Amino acid sequence: MPPPTDAEHFPLGDVVLQHGMTLPDAHLAYKTYGTLNADRSNAIVYPTWFSGWHTDNEWLIGPGMALDPADWFIIVPNMLGNGLSSSPSNQPPPRDRARFPFVTFQDQVACQHRLVTEHFGIETLALVTGWSMGAGQTYQWAVSHPEMVQRAVPFCGSAITADHNKVFLYSLGEAMRADAAFADGWYDPASPPLRGLRAFARIYAGWGFSQAFYWQEEWRRLGFVSLEDFLVGFWEGFWQDGRDPNNLLTMLWCWEHGDVGQTPGFDGDTVAALNSIRCPLLSMPAEKDLYFPPEDEHWSSQHIPHGDVRVIPGVWGHFAGGGQNPDDTAFIDAAIREMLDRPV
Amino acid sequence: MPPPTDAEHFPLGDVVLQHGMTLPDAHLAYKTYGTLNADRSNAIVYPTWFSGWHTDNEWLIGPGMALDPADWFIIVPNMLGNGLSSSPSNQPPPRDRARFPFVTFQDQVACQHRLVTEHFGIETLALVTGWSMGAGQTYQWAVSHPEMVQRAVPFCGSAITADHNKVFLYSLGEAMRADAAFADGWYDPASPPLRGLRAFARIYAGWGFSQAFYWQEEWRRLGFVSLEDFLVGFWEGFWQDGRDPNNLLTMLWCWEHGDVGQTPGFDGDTVAALNSIRCPLLSMPAEKDLYFPPEDEHWSSQHIPHGDVRVIPGVWGHFAGGGQNPDDTAFIDAAIREMLDRPV
Repeated sequence: MPPPTDAEHFPLGDVVLQHGMTLPDAHLAYKTYGTLNADRSNAIVYPTWFSGWHTDNEWLIGPGMALDPADWFIIVPNMLGNGLSSSPSNQPPPRDRARFPFVTFQDQVACQHRLVTEHFGIETLALVTGWSMGAGQTYQWAVSHPEMVQRAVPFCGSAITADHNKVFLYSLGEAMRADAAFADGWYDPASPPLRGLRAFARIYAGWGFSQAFYWQEEWRRLGFVSLEDFLVGFWEGFWQDGRDPNNLLTMLWCWEHGDVGQTPGFDGDTVAALNSIRCPLLSMPAEKDLYFPPEDEHWSSQHIPHGDVRVIPGVWGHFAGGGQNPDDTAFIDAAIREMLDRPV
Repeated sequence: MPPPTDAEHFPLGDVVLQHGMTLPDAHLAYKTYGTLNADRSNAIVYPTWFSGWHTDNEWLIGPGMALDPADWFIIVPNMLGNGLSSSPSNQPPPRDRARFPFVTFQDQVACQHRLVTEHFGIETLALVTGWSMGAGQTYQWAVSHPEMVQRAVPFCGSAITADHNKVFLYSLGEAMRADAAFADGWYDPASPPLRGLRAFARIYAGWGFSQAFYWQEEWRRLGFVSLEDFLVGFWEGFWQDGRDPNNLLTMLWCWEHGDVGQTPGFDGDTVAALNSIRCPLLSMPAEKDLYFPPEDEHWSSQHIPHGDVRVIPGVWGHFAGGGQNPDDTAFIDAAIREMLDRPV
């Protein structure tokens, strides 16, 4: 599937990023679902995940679901770097491709905050939620804007990227760079480094789902007929879907450096940042997630005044939060509904 | 450390391999510890692991340990493909480098069986034991030669390579091949594909130890001062230690195709092969091993008449069996002693 073309664009002007570079004439691509009510009290922010587009979030939105557009005004901002918002692949020279600057979770949320407040005039968010890097942005929203966020439900993600998770991410980056066709990021965008991308896909395949998922051949439920069929059809296809390698590495860098403690004012103190979260926050790690394991969320939760953890059971691992397993989707949807029913 | 030079060599002549190719003038490099007694009843076989040499097994052998050379005659055969026995790196043309034939666990054990019987005249083995691919060879010995093997202790390995484990192995191979310098295996052995090898190292780093190992910064106990220090010093060093890429891929292929059900006579029936094991077999998976998880061993064990599982507790994951954590080493040593004390 090619990248979607139905996004709206919010111009950000020149954005000064946390790491000291300017992103000129930046923009956020976003899509909204539902209608903002008169007192602007029904807004929800639901950020995207690593490599995902707004359309990849739509499985959790719909009539009869917790995120029902009849009730809520759901804003899905695309991450900087994802190819729809300002990214290596669409930024004009000299900040293009390998020169696209470093972007942090703090930067992501600062830009989204401008969209929400300046463009929509919204001052409170009934909920922020998201999967994986979307969960990282959810945590970041709760720390950066405790005055706005009324409820938070990060799923299969974390407030700080654990070292083991970083090792996984390093391996992805090194595999891409091992392909000489990557050319330090100066490849022709029309001919990306395919060997590197395919190695990237094979690495990701071992992490995205659990040991038991493979043992039980759960990929058959996705319509594949053999392990190799799944690895090529699902995984290699996934990363060759207009998902530019420089874009992927920009998002990887953001993920690697995830840490709410790096929010200005906290001086690197992750525990203090977690302790500053005011709203109820329900974290939902997946039981067998190999890179965001439940124990990390139990650690974070103990430092969040109204923090709670509810583990998504089953064998899908990280992709429990990807919307392709009906049981996991029902579990997440029910928890979000419960949170939204909670008075503030 | 360069490869060891203290091995002895057993000439195998021309070996016809399971997959239908001939390995001409093959040889097994091996080392022995202790003295074979008069009735040849004190022999133990302790095969090597992926990329390991016989010297890398020596941590489990020594005075006062279960594998005490004062009591036992311990034979450590180097795997075909490991650079000391016949391997892509030392085989003359035309079977050299990228043309080195496929070698299975069945082939490994068939060659070792000839060393043990033809060279040493040994007809019973008091024990076969090994780590990781050494565990795979242990299972294979118990299936191929139930008439010889009196006890078996595979640790952190399996009788059949699970699909999830294969996905990990595929990712290693793809990262190596993504480096154009690999040249389909026809690189100059003096200048191996370093980017590919370093990507290989980064991938392995995420698998070799558990999430909790990294969370607790257990690498400090190995003398490293930061995560990056560990990744470069331990992991990138590990694979650039004279461990030739074609050799690594030959061993990976063997690992990927591990399955005792492929033993001639079993027609692919893994359960029937496990059921044919006659000796007591104690499998010791590590609690947090990411690619040989304990549940796989529980599955195998139920099909082995005298099979048992004892999980190595702790956070070291697969490298619980690598000899670098004193607690894990003591646990393994104690279990081997208990098995050796068991009358047959």
